[in-house]
Amino acid sequence: MVESWPFLDTVESNFRPLVVIELAKGTKEETVEWFTKRIVDKKADGGAQLLIKPLVTENGHENIYLVGASHLRLLLGAETVGLVKECNDNSMRTFTYSSRKTFKDFADDNHNFLTMAECQYIIKHELDNLRAKNEKMIPGYPQAKLYPGKSIVRRLLTTGILVQIFPLHDREELKKLRHSWYGRVRVGYQPLDDIRCYFGETIALYFGFLEYFTFALIPMAVIGIPYYVFAWEDYDKYVMFATFNLLWSTVILEVWKRICAILTYRWGTLLMKRQFEEPRPGFHGVLGINPVTGREEPVYSSFKRQLRIYLVSLPFVCLCLYFSLYVMMIYFDLEQWALDYHKENESNFSSLMLYVPSIIYAVVIEIMNRIYRYAAEFLTSWENHRLESSYQNHLILKVLVFNFLNCFASLFYIAFVLFDMKLLRQSLATLLITSQILNQFAESLLPYWLQKRHNKRMKQRMCSQKTDRDLSLTEQVNMEKEMGTYLGTFDDYLELFLQFGYVSLFSCVYPLAAVFAVLNNITEIYSDALKMCRVYKRPFAEPTANIGVWQLAFETMSVISVVTNCMLIGMSPQVDALFPDSKMDLVLTVAFVEHLLLAVKFIMAFVIPDKPRDIEMKLAKLEFESLEALKQQQMKLAAESLKE
Amino acid sequence: MVESWPFLDTVESNFRPLVVIELAKGTKEETVEWFTKRIVDKKADGGAQLLIKPLVTENGHENIYLVGASHLRLLLGAETVGLVKECNDNSMRTFTYSSRKTFKDFADDNHNFLTMAECQYIIKHELDNLRAKNEKMIPGYPQAKLYPGKSIVRRLLTTGILVQIFPLHDREELKKLRHSWYGRVRVGYQPLDDIRCYFGETIALYFGFLEYFTFALIPMAVIGIPYYVFAWEDYDKYVMFATFNLLWSTVILEVWKRICAILTYRWGTLLMKRQFEEPRPGFHGVLGINPVTGREEPVYSSFKRQLRIYLVSLPFVCLCLYFSLYVMMIYFDLEQWALDYHKENESNFSSLMLYVPSIIYAVVIEIMNRIYRYAAEFLTSWENHRLESSYQNHLILKVLVFNFLNCFASLFYIAFVLFDMKLLRQSLATLLITSQILNQFAESLLPYWLQKRHNKRMKQRMCSQKTDRDLSLTEQVNMEKEMGTYLGTFDDYLELFLQFGYVSLFSCVYPLAAVFAVLNNITEIYSDALKMCRVYKRPFAEPTANIGVWQLAFETMSVISVVTNCMLIGMSPQVDALFPDSKMDLVLTVAFVEHLLLAVKFIMAFVIPDKPRDIEMKLAKLEFESLEALKQQQMKLAAESLKE
Repeated sequence: MVESWPFLDTVESNFRPLVVIELAKGTKEETVEWFTKRIVDKKADGGAQLLIKPLVTENGHENIYLVGASHLRLLLGAETVGLVKECNDNSMRTFTYSSRKTFKDFADDNHNFLTMAECQYIIKHELDNLRAKNEKMIPGYPQAKLYPGKSIVRRLLTTGILVQIFPLHDREELKKLRHSWYGRVRVGYQPLDDIRCYFGETIALYFGFLEYFTFALIPMAVIGIPYYVFAWEDYDKYVMFATFNLLWSTVILEVWKRICAILTYRWGTLLMKRQFEEPRPGFHGVLGINPVTGREEPVYSSFKRQLRIYLVSLPFVCLCLYFSLYVMMIYFDLEQWALDYHKENESNFSSLMLYVPSIIYAVVIEIMNRIYRYAAEFLTSWENHRLESSYQNHLILKVLVFNFLNCFASLFYIAFVLFDMKLLRQSLATLLITSQILNQFAESLLPYWLQKRHNKRMKQRMCSQKTDRDLSLTEQVNMEKEMGTYLGTFDDYLELFLQFGYVSLFSCVYPLAAVFAVLNNITEIYSDALKMCRVYKRPFAEPTANIGVWQLAFETMSVISVVTNCMLIGMSPQVDALFPDSKMDLVLTVAFVEHLLLAVKFIMAFVIPDKPRDIEMKLAKLEFESLEALKQQQMKLAAESLKE
Repeated sequence: MVESWPFLDTVESNFRPLVVIELAKGTKEETVEWFTKRIVDKKADGGAQLLIKPLVTENGHENIYLVGASHLRLLLGAETVGLVKECNDNSMRTFTYSSRKTFKDFADDNHNFLTMAECQYIIKHELDNLRAKNEKMIPGYPQAKLYPGKSIVRRLLTTGILVQIFPLHDREELKKLRHSWYGRVRVGYQPLDDIRCYFGETIALYFGFLEYFTFALIPMAVIGIPYYVFAWEDYDKYVMFATFNLLWSTVILEVWKRICAILTYRWGTLLMKRQFEEPRPGFHGVLGINPVTGREEPVYSSFKRQLRIYLVSLPFVCLCLYFSLYVMMIYFDLEQWALDYHKENESNFSSLMLYVPSIIYAVVIEIMNRIYRYAAEFLTSWENHRLESSYQNHLILKVLVFNFLNCFASLFYIAFVLFDMKLLRQSLATLLITSQILNQFAESLLPYWLQKRHNKRMKQRMCSQKTDRDLSLTEQVNMEKEMGTYLGTFDDYLELFLQFGYVSLFSCVYPLAAVFAVLNNITEIYSDALKMCRVYKRPFAEPTANIGVWQLAFETMSVISVVTNCMLIGMSPQVDALFPDSKMDLVLTVAFVEHLLLAVKFIMAFVIPDKPRDIEMKLAKLEFESLEALKQQQMKLAAESLKE
């Protein structure tokens, strides 16, 4: 079969496998032949002009293919995806093949100019953009319809002929990265640039945010400790702590934007132009003309989608919220029962029993969150959004609203209906700590343990037959294709978001929350790193310039926390005692302070520039240069036109 | 002297004067010669390649020059400034000379393809961008230093050699525009497209906003009338009115963004790319290297500017605010005195006297606003901002803060310190109506009257000698150069902003404010139109895509009005009576409703898309096309590279 790739033969010696394609077992020969031909076909003929090679194992080949590309092809692909790299003069510029010599570290024989993650991203982009020409269907599968311009890979994925595409790990690099990341116990920053080179910008930015957020929580934790140790309950101390927290949370979110700009400028993604968004894989509809592109593609009426959102999704979400509140009321019954039990037969056991309802409730919350997550994904997918970004926004909105209510409703109830500060403190502590332990376990340690067991078995099976380097590659591919798939940073950010809620919403009654958050985040860095390096398949790198909608989510949370903290302080007996004559004055004062704090927050957010001055300058310089170039071009044209 | 313009001679027959340049009397001959040579010089030699002709009057020529340009030159200039015009397929595209045939109404002999305002804008742009080459100073004026890249026109303006540059009116067009705009009494929309063609986008957008705002106020006025007529004072009716107002004000500001997008899309400015911003004319500093452009130009340390802002401007503004509050206290003394007087000798005269302090105060407020305006301009100019946009932002911030306090402080004091709703209503009415009358008078009617008297005298002087068309042009230029200069839309927007404050901040105690606002705005449209057409020199067109910082200012005002209205309702005796037992419950309820309204506002602002769907589609289509074109280009390049 190798004879059918003439282009490949000439450069076989350089073939470096980058991406693995796994086809379903029993895929028809003609389909495989057609698909691989399209992959190696010249660009001019509508192909991707990549290299492909079947993976040969002891049992013959099992429909697993390795994809690579020539060095030149990758450089041209880098231009297509609009990669931004560092130039010799230390500025960041969009890479073009014609200006390649001006880029730092570029040499025609330096194959490390593009990182492996970048190469894999380019190959993924090229595969995704491999489009049907005039095929009406996938050869061999008449039911799998195609139309001109449809992404072949996406159709193959939805029909199940293509099982998965994933990038290969680089064992050498991974070992180095593991060592510098979490290999030794040390105090220091994470190697964000190395993480970015290996896993891409989205994941590196998550770890950057996690690290930044942990550092930012340290002042809150440090200030919180004496409150716990000395059991400070003075009015003025609490007000000071809460005020500090509220302003601090605004500052850290604003400063993050600046740090994010620094990181993404260095990584080139701040300057990367947005690509035109294609319909997401799951989108379906009748064939029609897309008014934007003028191409024939599935069209789905926006009115129908709105109907689905407002008549099905919205009521369902409301029902879930109601159910969550119902569960909360059961929790309060349990709590009451435990309290009664403790009163009746006071013992060590009964005082331990006091914590049991909260722990059970925390576990139930986690379970409900996870179940709801699946339901939300199903519903949002059923809403049939055309764009991935629109799908993501609707999913995030659904999940955030439910998780917020599910996690915090009981605390709000305790604080503002029961007015029981002692219970609030206890509940908050139990919920926070239980959810942190559960998360760490479910997210990283359990999968790690499962993976390790699996690998061991795999190795035992293979070890005896291991002979040369080629087999080692086969072994690696076989091992990696069984690994779990990392589903993106959504869950990780969500966890941080809820943690931020626990820390900031009721910070003035439980200053110790920040301490637990810091401790959790330190271990979280390690367990997430472990998860990325050991448990999951390598994910494709995804360029990104910011943490997107999460910035807004965190900011909203910090606004809500101003309101809750002001109310809590207003309700404390110490403050109450300051206004012995008139409750009215108390409430008015609290309301006034709250509005003042909110105003200060908004002004601060407005005044602190989103990008550091030197990044602004560099961006202005680039813009100036491109305008200048345009002007030169026009001047030349004008001079010519006027001469005629 | 005419011999020195060889280029001009060949096209003399087509010369259409567009822009007038007035040099100071007694400007040295060599300066005039150098300047006019630079204007007619070829682009390739660093000139502007325009046409220039001295205006010859009965007294010889008086250093007044008419500037025009050949049709081809204007088309090339349109490309340079990035003009967006409508194509044959009704889409809007950036004009390029090479694609000129695809544009609607384009023909090589159609000299109306570009509107006169566009031609004048192009000429202004070209003149502004006429830069020094290696001249070290302006010939004849050794003290007027130049450096390579310095705009010649700006230097001439700052040294006073160049008195003014202004575009000529087109009497025919102006007559037509006047007729359709305010020539006949009729109910209907303003001819915004014609206004835009004649005065440019910034001014047309102001009139569009004024009209839209007036229409948007009508529902509030209509609902407000019965409250006044039937003297409704019920709690629930007021709450309904206030709630409607608050949500309505959010809706109208959001909808305006959409209408603005529709207008500016049609006018092409929504798609126009931002030009690189040059230093503003008044900016000075020692020569240094601009890190962005790499050019030698004046540099002024940002630290020094910050010092000036925080150590001088800020204390000065605070002092002015204090002074304004001091004046307010004098007003309250006066008010008290009038009240005492009325009590002592009750008569028709004494009850009229009750209004006198408010009227005096309103006049004083107007005067203080105007004086402060000059001080703010002086200070902001002294702060030495490099960019016009930064200058404008600092000026607007200074003026807005002061005007807000100056106009509304007394009302806040009456409402929330004196708790005197009757006085609040009376004060609000007097302030609103007095300021409206004063504004209309000072802004339009007075200048109109002055201008008319001046014109009459001018005409009498000229009439006897009038013989032919050429003299008529001379007469026109002489008349127009004496007219006042329109200083931009700042004052007009500020007036609307304060009016919006009067209408929305205390809407629930004085529902009639909206009625007065509507009445005022209807006459305002006419008086502003009169002012533009009759009183001022024609202003240069300025492309703009939105009303800029004013959108934010109006939105902030509508947020503040939520707070004030909730407080007012909470303080009303009717609401008070609903909570007979506990004032605390009252305040908590009000605070809750306020937070709810604010949340609804923010959610509404978030949910309502800023651009209508069809505009979004058209923008997406353009973006898609440009990405597609880029891809094609890269593909071609890639195919070539791979062939090698």
